[in-house]
Amino acid sequence: MSIIDLLPSETPIKAIPPGEVVFTQGDPGGLMFVVIDGEVDVLLDGKLIETVRSGGVFGEMALIDSGPRSATAISRTRCLLSPVDELRFRELIVREPEFAFLVMRVLARRLRRMDVAR
Amino acid sequence: MSIIDLLPSETPIKAIPPGEVVFTQGDPGGLMFVVIDGEVDVLLDGKLIETVRSGGVFGEMALIDSGPRSATAISRTRCLLSPVDELRFRELIVREPEFAFLVMRVLARRLRRMDVAR
Repeated sequence: MSIIDLLPSETPIKAIPPGEVVFTQGDPGGLMFVVIDGEVDVLLDGKLIETVRSGGVFGEMALIDSGPRSATAISRTRCLLSPVDELRFRELIVREPEFAFLVMRVLARRLRRMDVAR
Repeated sequence: MSIIDLLPSETPIKAIPPGEVVFTQGDPGGLMFVVIDGEVDVLLDGKLIETVRSGGVFGEMALIDSGPRSATAISRTRCLLSPVDELRFRELIVREPEFAFLVMRVLARRLRRMDVAR
């Protein structure tokens, strides 16, 4: 099961061209994005740390802990993104507990990769 | 609100003495632990990366992604721990969506710390 399958049918979708900065490290957060189609590069201090593809999410950290953006996100290709704010995020957890589990898996995978990178 | 407040009343509690290895890096996982009382040291490659206190959790990564233990956990003091397996973890998310949010916050905080440490 993918996170896309768990999004409600009335989900807003935003199309962006390649090379667009979705957010910049240090910015205030507030939205997580689900990649419906396309590829998004995530950069930490200018270094590529991940390319997020269809069914993946990015920007979840600033949503979860209300901190500033921990990384910069730039579209690598034309993308379809579904923005999720905190209210919708909480609604999704209540409506689809599997959504919470999938987001936690993303966070755990990133943590493991960071462990290896140190 | 603390994760302890969200645990059901029938939660099992395990008491362990100081200096006990709860699990070792590389072991198969399966249980997350909520610290009810006491302090637990989390070590990565023998280096202390965090001391988890009352209301905190550890061991959640191996539970979430079914991978091996990413770190070693040793009690620093006498501890009361509540072990949570995947079934109870999923039940908690369904029953208390706030629990999912609190666990995600733990993961996000760890990721931010790792970013800074790199």
